[in-house]
Amino acid sequence: LESKLPNVGTTIFTVMSQLATEQQAINLGQGFPDFNPDPRLLDMVSKAMADGHNQYPPMPGIVALREEIASKVHKLYGANYDPLTEITVTSGATEALMATIQAFVRAGDEVVVIEPFYDLYLPAIELAGGIPVVVPMQAPDATHATYRVDWQRVRAAIGPATRMLMLNFPHNPTGIVMTEADLDALESIVQDTGVMLLSDEAYEHIVFDGNIHQSIARRELLAANAVVISSFGKTYHTTGWKIGYCCAPQALTAEIRKVHQFIVFTVPSPMQYALAHYMQDPKPYLGLSDFYQAKRDRLHAGLAKTRFQPLPSLGTFFLLARYDAISDLPEADFARWLTLEHGVAVIPVSAFYRQPDAPESNHRIVRFCFAKQDSTLDEAVARLARV
Amino acid sequence: LESKLPNVGTTIFTVMSQLATEQQAINLGQGFPDFNPDPRLLDMVSKAMADGHNQYPPMPGIVALREEIASKVHKLYGANYDPLTEITVTSGATEALMATIQAFVRAGDEVVVIEPFYDLYLPAIELAGGIPVVVPMQAPDATHATYRVDWQRVRAAIGPATRMLMLNFPHNPTGIVMTEADLDALESIVQDTGVMLLSDEAYEHIVFDGNIHQSIARRELLAANAVVISSFGKTYHTTGWKIGYCCAPQALTAEIRKVHQFIVFTVPSPMQYALAHYMQDPKPYLGLSDFYQAKRDRLHAGLAKTRFQPLPSLGTFFLLARYDAISDLPEADFARWLTLEHGVAVIPVSAFYRQPDAPESNHRIVRFCFAKQDSTLDEAVARLARV
Ligand SMILES: CSCCC(=O)C(=O)O
Ligand SMILES: CSCCC(=O)C(=O)O
Repeated sequence: LESKLPNVGTTIFTVMSQLATEQQAINLGQGFPDFNPDPRLLDMVSKAMADGHNQYPPMPGIVALREEIASKVHKLYGANYDPLTEITVTSGATEALMATIQAFVRAGDEVVVIEPFYDLYLPAIELAGGIPVVVPMQAPDATHATYRVDWQRVRAAIGPATRMLMLNFPHNPTGIVMTEADLDALESIVQDTGVMLLSDEAYEHIVFDGNIHQSIARRELLAANAVVISSFGKTYHTTGWKIGYCCAPQALTAEIRKVHQFIVFTVPSPMQYALAHYMQDPKPYLGLSDFYQAKRDRLHAGLAKTRFQPLPSLGTFFLLARYDAISDLPEADFARWLTLEHGVAVIPVSAFYRQPDAPESNHRIVRFCFAKQDSTLDEAVARLARV
Repeated sequence: LESKLPNVGTTIFTVMSQLATEQQAINLGQGFPDFNPDPRLLDMVSKAMADGHNQYPPMPGIVALREEIASKVHKLYGANYDPLTEITVTSGATEALMATIQAFVRAGDEVVVIEPFYDLYLPAIELAGGIPVVVPMQAPDATHATYRVDWQRVRAAIGPATRMLMLNFPHNPTGIVMTEADLDALESIVQDTGVMLLSDEAYEHIVFDGNIHQSIARRELLAANAVVISSFGKTYHTTGWKIGYCCAPQALTAEIRKVHQFIVFTVPSPMQYALAHYMQDPKPYLGLSDFYQAKRDRLHAGLAKTRFQPLPSLGTFFLLARYDAISDLPEADFARWLTLEHGVAVIPVSAFYRQPDAPESNHRIVRFCFAKQDSTLDEAVARLARV
């Protein structure tokens, strides 16, 4: 039996979560909250079940939920997506990414990805027979505190064989966000090349320091040939419900749905009804940035007193920190050591690189998830202070 | 924009359900119950949410649910699947089928399917670059009341390029089931050819007239190179929850999970906890055949008094009926006409053929779903009696 994905093992998130459980370590690895969603949202799921919403919902999602999504995207980003033909509810951002790639990438097509990248991007491209073209970010150095995208390098990677460009801002794992200047740069790339954009915006509601999320949906020129993906998991503290969505012009949506209907057909109806109801109140998602900024500040301040050197986090619920004052182990080994010896599980950033073990993928930086109760963060910092 | 799936439109199930809603027709088309699941099961979901099971469950499903599945499959079919390495919880049978095909089928591989077949089979094979090889069943005729599989034709379709053989018993839409003689025939095919089996057994708990379900899992020789798929949707009246699973030897499961983790990563945790609890009581699934047999009898008896001629249904919650005494319209047109003129939506069996519009795919037979309240079935029969 020859594997179609010989290089794929179990995802790093599962590996580190399992190790955390075995070691009873504090799990700041895999990205999920250690607190429960709003009880009102849970009650809405129970009510939807009692009301009889337990059979197949429509394949692209219930209309009420698609209407709420359209209205939110319009209010926040000014975009006009038709809920009937341009919005599809998916099994998390994951399925939206997979369905989009399967819908558009053919054998031999190139897909440009910016490294570091989320671990499903390469295998998803490869399953469709596509060829990933990797553009590295510039890693932080003495003069630059954060990772940076060099849009000229992105432009140079796009050629006649390019099928799409994958984007992910706010960015996991680096916590960098898009600026208006980035949107400008993208506009000129799209004007030049006509490239299709696949924009994974799962952390759209988690942006700090008074910045706003620069969604691809804000610019008509970009949105006209883009698939914009988001997820309720990160927004409503329901990562285990696996409900996300994608917005795309009608012609693209039609192709995505052809694949979606055969990948999962649809996603759980009780959650869809509950989310449609819960979204009517914008406060939970509008307040999310403040909620997480306080946690970012707490972890950042705590780490600053240890031998870790925290990097700026401008969005997402992740924060990176250098450990070169502590160890020169490669990142995966350091993450393991930290879990075993100090009871705090983290994610090696090298796992977001095409070649995790290569020296150039190892900057001695690990990722901490701060979607945790304050007491969890405090206890983690106390342990890290002993490192 | 050139479609990767140019022949795929919206599934017939969505088309007919939409038409039924527009026309306020009785929907005996798409296969789902018009009654709610056991309230105890719904309470278990609410309890799981309140207990904090709202974040990512393990990628292959929670262990408790996999253990219950293993124990059920062992009790019913004698098979020994290791819950940790051989059972994966999926987003319905749909995702299990898609993940399996993506995991094993490469460009140019042939996949043998028996026609009529569920509408996702061909596009799923084609997305993976595979080539469907279609073996038609023999349609019912003057001497045979039901559809039949000719295993010699199946054997003849298997050659060096064959990657797998897809099976689906109890069979949607024909309602035929596997017998021990069928398992024997399959055994000799597998002995001859070593072909991998993909067995979609979503209706495993709905088998009538005292017969038992002849799962592929019953025979070691077959199970050794088979992926056996089922779903909770049809068993617990929760088609809208989208939870299914697949059982396969460790080497196959490892490849399926590589794909599963990137298609959806995992499926909703509250439902998984609830199902793990609910499965501890075997009565609901053991009683399902009797429950549906009464409905089959009710619809069959009702139709027998109309100008439709019901065919035998030996399993599933579907029943076919000839309409040649009523009309010589092709099946799709007849189904539409019946919905518009008589207020009963059904599915044309031709939709389960590679060429739905071809004369040889049109036997003037439509499919009725009897997963409905008795009052719904009675009202449908009253309307059909007027045809
Ligand atoms: C699907 S598990 C990974 C969760 C996540 O988004 C992350 O930790 O980066
Ligand atoms: C996913 S909608 C189709 C439901 C079904 O299994 C059927 O009607 O055959």
